[in-house]
Amino acid sequence: MKLTIDKHRLWQRLNDMASVGATPAGGCNRQALSDLDFEGRGLFESWCRAAGCTIRHDAIGNVFARRPGRLDSAAPVMSGSHLDTQPTGGKYDGVYGVLSTLEVVETLNDHAIETDHPIDVVVWTNEEGSRFDCAMMGSAVWSGALDLQAACALKDLQGVSVGSELERLGITDTAAMDHNVHAAFELHIEQGPILEAQATPVGIVTGVQHMCRFRIEFIGQETHAGPSPMAMRKDPMMATADFLTSGYAAADRHQPDGRITFGYIHASPGSPNTVPGRVELTVDLRHPDAHAYLAMQQAVHTGCAASAAKFGLEFECNQVWEAPGVEFDSSCIQAVRDAVEAAGLPAMDIVSGAGHDACNIAAVAPTSMIFIPCEDGLSHNEAENITAEQAANGANVLLHTLLVAAGGG
Amino acid sequence: MKLTIDKHRLWQRLNDMASVGATPAGGCNRQALSDLDFEGRGLFESWCRAAGCTIRHDAIGNVFARRPGRLDSAAPVMSGSHLDTQPTGGKYDGVYGVLSTLEVVETLNDHAIETDHPIDVVVWTNEEGSRFDCAMMGSAVWSGALDLQAACALKDLQGVSVGSELERLGITDTAAMDHNVHAAFELHIEQGPILEAQATPVGIVTGVQHMCRFRIEFIGQETHAGPSPMAMRKDPMMATADFLTSGYAAADRHQPDGRITFGYIHASPGSPNTVPGRVELTVDLRHPDAHAYLAMQQAVHTGCAASAAKFGLEFECNQVWEAPGVEFDSSCIQAVRDAVEAAGLPAMDIVSGAGHDACNIAAVAPTSMIFIPCEDGLSHNEAENITAEQAANGANVLLHTLLVAAGGG
Repeated sequence: MKLTIDKHRLWQRLNDMASVGATPAGGCNRQALSDLDFEGRGLFESWCRAAGCTIRHDAIGNVFARRPGRLDSAAPVMSGSHLDTQPTGGKYDGVYGVLSTLEVVETLNDHAIETDHPIDVVVWTNEEGSRFDCAMMGSAVWSGALDLQAACALKDLQGVSVGSELERLGITDTAAMDHNVHAAFELHIEQGPILEAQATPVGIVTGVQHMCRFRIEFIGQETHAGPSPMAMRKDPMMATADFLTSGYAAADRHQPDGRITFGYIHASPGSPNTVPGRVELTVDLRHPDAHAYLAMQQAVHTGCAASAAKFGLEFECNQVWEAPGVEFDSSCIQAVRDAVEAAGLPAMDIVSGAGHDACNIAAVAPTSMIFIPCEDGLSHNEAENITAEQAANGANVLLHTLLVAAGGG
Repeated sequence: MKLTIDKHRLWQRLNDMASVGATPAGGCNRQALSDLDFEGRGLFESWCRAAGCTIRHDAIGNVFARRPGRLDSAAPVMSGSHLDTQPTGGKYDGVYGVLSTLEVVETLNDHAIETDHPIDVVVWTNEEGSRFDCAMMGSAVWSGALDLQAACALKDLQGVSVGSELERLGITDTAAMDHNVHAAFELHIEQGPILEAQATPVGIVTGVQHMCRFRIEFIGQETHAGPSPMAMRKDPMMATADFLTSGYAAADRHQPDGRITFGYIHASPGSPNTVPGRVELTVDLRHPDAHAYLAMQQAVHTGCAASAAKFGLEFECNQVWEAPGVEFDSSCIQAVRDAVEAAGLPAMDIVSGAGHDACNIAAVAPTSMIFIPCEDGLSHNEAENITAEQAANGANVLLHTLLVAAGGG
């Protein structure tokens, strides 16, 4: 008989964790380093201890719950995600990857299966970046991409720092953490509509797309809407219409993978009968292929300048954020492929549209990810939803992945 | 020698009135029925009394300062505008037309010139509609377009009503006002760039363009910007780009007079990495020709529906306000033409882009307007500016207009 995780235990744990910081609308509010985040971590650690794991923390509050391996000196296989949520977040983003790894550990325990390598169930601190504006913070510090002091100095809107919250909650350890990792995995909900649309239960994540963000401003001349002939206006909305059109066209040239989003737009002063003096907007640009991504970036720069010039306007075009794409480790991807086969589930290759802690881990250890579908592709939303069946599918793939990667059986 | 107004006296009066509610940035804040509006009215009435005028008020606080005519039973010639300003308004919008009429009266007095018809220097209450959201309120009540009780019930943001302010300030009279008006004129700054661009000191205003306002909403589906392929999105910004383009194209088809303005736009939730669920925007549409105006209105309706359909979105398209165009009285326009000639000034025909009290008066009496240029076409702005020379030009045209219309000499 095929080895499988305990679907009911996993589903119960997901529900139990969701009760910590549960919102009236059915979501979760367990923001990083809040009392509720602390309560969620405590619940998780109590389950880990009951499962025989040894808990360690690092200096930024990342949690490593270790199931020992047969070989004392072998580097661990890491698997996990995050427990913190958006202020109006869902019940599965992050949590699902953490609790599925714990479920794998318990399944191995149930069947008295040993592995050569230890397995570390990992919780990364502040993945969401909603309270402290730095997404994937804990994994960035762990991997060396972000300085510990810089992370500790980050403050929330009330002026409370990461450092003071870590100290208040007492969830850090100054012991240096081992970076000698045999392999790392992260199981996550897709947060997009592709797997659901393809009716495919598992996504073999081969990488994360390149992404960046621009802040753009077209500057014209504020005038009364009535008495100003069109030809005498310096109307930044004209440039905006032109720029939006060229931006969507640039994404069209790089389908099916290119993505462009205009999420924020503001016209000043914002009065119906005044030609705006300024229009400010943001552009979010993504593509998994480096060349196509660069072409789209270039199209934003030239499109913005061209639209401004066409209407005789001033403009500003600043790239304010960039996260280079990641190609996951081929042997880790292969381990997931094999596990999909072992679990007997249909699967497809997929590129992650969003950033994940796995992006940081990939810089220092062989890493890959596994996705499951979520309802309507919704995430960062209290309506975020998956079924117990979908949850079990992904956890079973993770089980076989970790079994192979950690040398089990 | 040609009869002319006293340029220095007019300029001094404009400056004296500007000191009431003067703002640090050089503008005026004398909002309707405020203490400062009351102070401005008081100053104006004291000048009128000194010039031998009889002051009357109507039930909505409009002021009629009458210089008697030779024929007791003759209907008056009206001329004036408003003294209230925007919260960050300029020194000339409205005020210039009122004080120029007073200057004409004083010039006639100086030269002992009698007219057959009385001349009423008029101040209309709350033309701006910034404190009480109803532009051209006083003239609308006077002309019967707006019910007195409805006007009195209007409240400002603090909940204070027009009626209670009128009572507090004691500036009303229940005496019925005579609607038997021989002719009416309004001298105003253009509030647009046309006269300045043409280096023409006087605009003979033949009418006011048709105008309306729409509130439009495109409704899609809010999703994470990263994992959602373009083809699976319901992105209201796509429809917005398409609609803006079709809107500007509709105005292009009706140049040089068609005007379209997108003054307000808001994308919800307004996060850079979220595809908006909704985009709301306003459209302000204007054209002096009824057929072209109708065609543009139709283009907004069909364009909005087409843009929504193109991207599979829901939409709402509501016309929330409309002011039909006005064609001024041909004999009044001719009187201005003759006056321009008498004053020896270059002039051009012009259609008003903005609404004025004259629009309401035109419904019950032969009416027309006179424009002068203002710097950069700026208005509703503390930087609103004209020169003493420009002010004198318009007042001289008004002098000769009223002389002819009132049967002077």
